[in-house]
Amino acid sequence: MPLLVVGSVAYDTISTPTETREMVIGGSAVHFSMAASFFAPVRLVGVVGEDWNEDHTSMLTARGIDMSGLEKKPGGKTFFWKGKYHSNMNDRDTLEVHLNVFGDFQPTLPDSFKRSDYVFLANGSPVTQMKVLEQVTSPKLVVADTMDLWIREQHDELLALLKRVDGLVLNDSEAKLLTGEENIVAAGKAVRQLGPKFVVVKKGEHGAMFFADHETYVLPAFPTADVVDPTGAGDSFAGGMMGYLAQEGKLDAETLKKAMAHGVLVASFNVEDFSLDRFRNLDKSEIDFRLTQYRKMLAF
Amino acid sequence: MPLLVVGSVAYDTISTPTETREMVIGGSAVHFSMAASFFAPVRLVGVVGEDWNEDHTSMLTARGIDMSGLEKKPGGKTFFWKGKYHSNMNDRDTLEVHLNVFGDFQPTLPDSFKRSDYVFLANGSPVTQMKVLEQVTSPKLVVADTMDLWIREQHDELLALLKRVDGLVLNDSEAKLLTGEENIVAAGKAVRQLGPKFVVVKKGEHGAMFFADHETYVLPAFPTADVVDPTGAGDSFAGGMMGYLAQEGKLDAETLKKAMAHGVLVASFNVEDFSLDRFRNLDKSEIDFRLTQYRKMLAF
Repeated sequence: MPLLVVGSVAYDTISTPTETREMVIGGSAVHFSMAASFFAPVRLVGVVGEDWNEDHTSMLTARGIDMSGLEKKPGGKTFFWKGKYHSNMNDRDTLEVHLNVFGDFQPTLPDSFKRSDYVFLANGSPVTQMKVLEQVTSPKLVVADTMDLWIREQHDELLALLKRVDGLVLNDSEAKLLTGEENIVAAGKAVRQLGPKFVVVKKGEHGAMFFADHETYVLPAFPTADVVDPTGAGDSFAGGMMGYLAQEGKLDAETLKKAMAHGVLVASFNVEDFSLDRFRNLDKSEIDFRLTQYRKMLAF
Repeated sequence: MPLLVVGSVAYDTISTPTETREMVIGGSAVHFSMAASFFAPVRLVGVVGEDWNEDHTSMLTARGIDMSGLEKKPGGKTFFWKGKYHSNMNDRDTLEVHLNVFGDFQPTLPDSFKRSDYVFLANGSPVTQMKVLEQVTSPKLVVADTMDLWIREQHDELLALLKRVDGLVLNDSEAKLLTGEENIVAAGKAVRQLGPKFVVVKKGEHGAMFFADHETYVLPAFPTADVVDPTGAGDSFAGGMMGYLAQEGKLDAETLKKAMAHGVLVASFNVEDFSLDRFRNLDKSEIDFRLTQYRKMLAF
């Protein structure tokens, strides 16, 4: 079933302790779409500037991602992020952010996108996320991401959104910030009280936790020593999860857990190279093989 | 099969954001022994001062812990630790440490303890740990714990010990300190290169990782919002793990993983109350029930 994602499309300049890559393709909607494309057809809505390289549109289209919702603003520049990872590869400093055309992004869904069963509102202002939601016709599942900026600066708008979505995906620090709870489990449960039927708390290298009615669980990250670039890991997780759900077309507890596992695994590939490079060289059979390893790892 | 533990026996004064408990029983060997006692007979070797309350000896003896290796130093005082947890219940400040009689502890094994198949060298100076090892007759499995102090101040002695033990249990930050690796997986693998056949890296609220030849895995912590006092969680983990191994009497990969799982679960109970209070009210059937929940949580 078709999966719609609305979010940022960006160029990133990323420094790790050993290497710098300039102006590589990134953004939440892009990482999400690539990850999801292993499982289901994806519809992307975003905005870029005149500096956008059309080869990137072609590359994403070739992955089964419908790019007809990508708006190109004449005279504008694409969202740009420049960051530098610390030697632990978990912490990072943002050196530059230029929102550019993303700053006043007013997403308009192509008519053909309005009927999308699965919808992911990637990180963005809750006001914008709500406007997207209002354009979608009877979706089966709407999941949103958010971040500390919106929790702090558009708190009421975010609370209003949370009453309208089925699921929320956010980082552990964000869950704590949103609820004032310092224990991750308590925070996850408290977020769920704000409206979503389920909440996924991402813990980076430690995996992800799931909270729903009468159900709390954690899935660890797939252990890897080979972390090249963690940028987009969270969006890749969401893409793997939502892509799997769209592929399966059902939302029972068992399918949701399998979707979480697929999110964890797809994210574990994303970090193995810069930008989309690992995904571009990734075969579905590698995901399936790692899934087998992961299942074995968690069985005793 | 009998399980020997040599380590600290202490009185702790513990403050959490909501409560303070003064002079409660603690210490690595005590937490370890209580956790292990659910699975196997335990032999404890440690030292206390004249302030030791003999009721505590009786309580531990009643759990199947052989306390005949507990030395009581006339005129001495028992190891005392005073700590305060931050509101996140993960970070803590040590307010006071008085090693007292533990400061020049020279463990001497009772003759009846020398033939112990399973041996745990709880956190202590690697010189002392080595002296214990020299008193043990052909053990089946020797596992040691260590800490940042010894990694920094008795580095060569620790490296010598690591060539003599089968397993090492340490925290993630300690594994990084010992190896200079900043990625946990890389650090765990590097520790193994120092000698032990297997290494367990404890990640606190995120669970524990296992490293052996051709095998790396992670088991998440059992999710709980009910963290009352994390003191001794790491020793409880080790006690659950070693106790299960001693109960099973075998060391194959499958048994080791089950032992890790039991360590995780037993530690999850330990944090639910101060000192040994949760263990004192814990029934083996509760561990078994949580094991079923944990297995279900990790299956998809």
